[in-house]
Amino acid sequence: MFTNLEKIQTVALVGATGLVGQEFLEILAEHKIKFNKLRLLASEDSAGDWLEVGEYSAPVEALGPSSFEGVDVAFFSVPVDVTRKFVPKAVDAGALVIDDSSAYRMIPDVPLIVPEVNGERLRGFRGKVIANPNCTVTPLALSLKPLQERYGLERVVVSTYQSVSGAGKRAYDELAHQTASLLNGGEEQPSVFAHPIAFNCLPLVGDVDEDGVAEEERKLEKELKKILELPNLAVSASAVRVPTFYGHGMTVNVQLTQDFNSIEEVRELLGAFPGIKVLDQPSGHIYPTNRESSGSDSTFVGRLRRDESIPSGLNYWVITDNLRKGAALNVLQCLDVLYKDR
Amino acid sequence: MFTNLEKIQTVALVGATGLVGQEFLEILAEHKIKFNKLRLLASEDSAGDWLEVGEYSAPVEALGPSSFEGVDVAFFSVPVDVTRKFVPKAVDAGALVIDDSSAYRMIPDVPLIVPEVNGERLRGFRGKVIANPNCTVTPLALSLKPLQERYGLERVVVSTYQSVSGAGKRAYDELAHQTASLLNGGEEQPSVFAHPIAFNCLPLVGDVDEDGVAEEERKLEKELKKILELPNLAVSASAVRVPTFYGHGMTVNVQLTQDFNSIEEVRELLGAFPGIKVLDQPSGHIYPTNRESSGSDSTFVGRLRRDESIPSGLNYWVITDNLRKGAALNVLQCLDVLYKDR
Repeated sequence: MFTNLEKIQTVALVGATGLVGQEFLEILAEHKIKFNKLRLLASEDSAGDWLEVGEYSAPVEALGPSSFEGVDVAFFSVPVDVTRKFVPKAVDAGALVIDDSSAYRMIPDVPLIVPEVNGERLRGFRGKVIANPNCTVTPLALSLKPLQERYGLERVVVSTYQSVSGAGKRAYDELAHQTASLLNGGEEQPSVFAHPIAFNCLPLVGDVDEDGVAEEERKLEKELKKILELPNLAVSASAVRVPTFYGHGMTVNVQLTQDFNSIEEVRELLGAFPGIKVLDQPSGHIYPTNRESSGSDSTFVGRLRRDESIPSGLNYWVITDNLRKGAALNVLQCLDVLYKDR
Repeated sequence: MFTNLEKIQTVALVGATGLVGQEFLEILAEHKIKFNKLRLLASEDSAGDWLEVGEYSAPVEALGPSSFEGVDVAFFSVPVDVTRKFVPKAVDAGALVIDDSSAYRMIPDVPLIVPEVNGERLRGFRGKVIANPNCTVTPLALSLKPLQERYGLERVVVSTYQSVSGAGKRAYDELAHQTASLLNGGEEQPSVFAHPIAFNCLPLVGDVDEDGVAEEERKLEKELKKILELPNLAVSASAVRVPTFYGHGMTVNVQLTQDFNSIEEVRELLGAFPGIKVLDQPSGHIYPTNRESSGSDSTFVGRLRRDESIPSGLNYWVITDNLRKGAALNVLQCLDVLYKDR
């Protein structure tokens, strides 16, 4: 899967102790990728901890102004305020930054990349910052790209079923502890989420703007248009947090420009696209759930069916591991494309 | 809330030991409703059990051909094959049947009722069977009705977040046991659902037809059109089971015929409609979740916002207790309307 990553000499992983950081290390271990030097950076609280994942065994260093000396590539997966403070320092030190926060995504010159969709934008790239899309946008863009190429896209209505790991390690722990407490007749108060998340759906992800639209919904709409290079695409998103640990699922309703001939045609089209795995025999209970997606590099599509309420309408379900293709895996794929020519 | 129910002399509750049957009894107890006689009917397995809910304390009788002698109203909440077998017997015995299965819903002469929406269809009704809508359709129809009256409806795209109690008591137990087992490092195999439901979303509810559309999705589309008396309404539904116990949530995307002036106007319109409670101050984390809906008689609406991707577009979230307004409460409300004139 990766052929060019070992050309990178020194990599800094900013947010090494977070869920995405950990997933990044696990993918390196799985694929036996070894950089010459890997620096693990995190907040002072974690400094001195020793991380061991696969062949890597290294101490965590506290992130500071001089963390980026001699660093070729810095991957940031930290809260947006930390990103804003430290990315400029990494760039000043000469590092290429690939950032997983929303800080740089909508800056026109910054490539926002899903390699299978618009990876060619990285060929010959000489800028200093690349943005990794929101973890719901990546699988959505991936599933829509072959439809865009073959039929054209008019309008997309999407509803998300997002797991708690998208909100970080504390959110993950909150679901686990709250669920256990409830099953034992107790009631643990929410701390990361505004409401209990155990056996509960929260129809708000992120803050809302003055129009009542959630941050996550705006990101989904804007980033999708940028990645697909369709500034006038009609997109409407509803983001909901559900009590699952891994995997962001989505129901997708699309109006295409040209009609498809059969669902079988669409199934084949999507199944042939890199990164997508079609699991779609619902009469035999074959469709993707969080379980299938968890730990997998694929973006899974199922429940393909015609929407008869509009011309050229299509409904489907898409789900991917939000920490992998939704974050760490996509970053490594970006770097692999980038280092092809370096 | 109820003023006419005690005019009914003898009621038979068919499926008394099921989740909806139990909820029916709890609502009677809460509202101190006492019929002259209440017969609790269930399968032979439960016969002889003694149920005590509120002021009711009665033995469960095995459902049989002669169960309906002297019964004025029979409420059926049992699997569709049992419904098909015993409803004709109840009707022959002279009972009025109100049925919670899908068996009679789409028969043109059979009223399919959400009292706040189309309860006037029951005035002067002299037929023998009334159908109770699918538990996702009731809250959806309720939330759409005021929008239909004021603005008109063009197209509805809905995605469901359905709890396990909608699939019955065994499904409820499966989520509880499987979750506990997982948290203890075990893995309990699925039995009611085709896949594990603990911390997992299943994007299929019911069997699929030859077009790949799920039973639940078809019901939602067809029943909604019947209740709203809009046979040409464009409706597209995606039904997903999520790991919650109570409450069916939905993201709703509507294209209206005429535009609304402001979200505040829509908020007031919905809030003034009977049966609806608006919880919509998302900046203060006020929006309805399964928790708010559980045990409540209201259908909750929140996250109201304009969908800028189409003219006159509206997005919102709606959730109700699937066993109450989604089933038992709606039935009692139907009977209350019906017995106004009797």
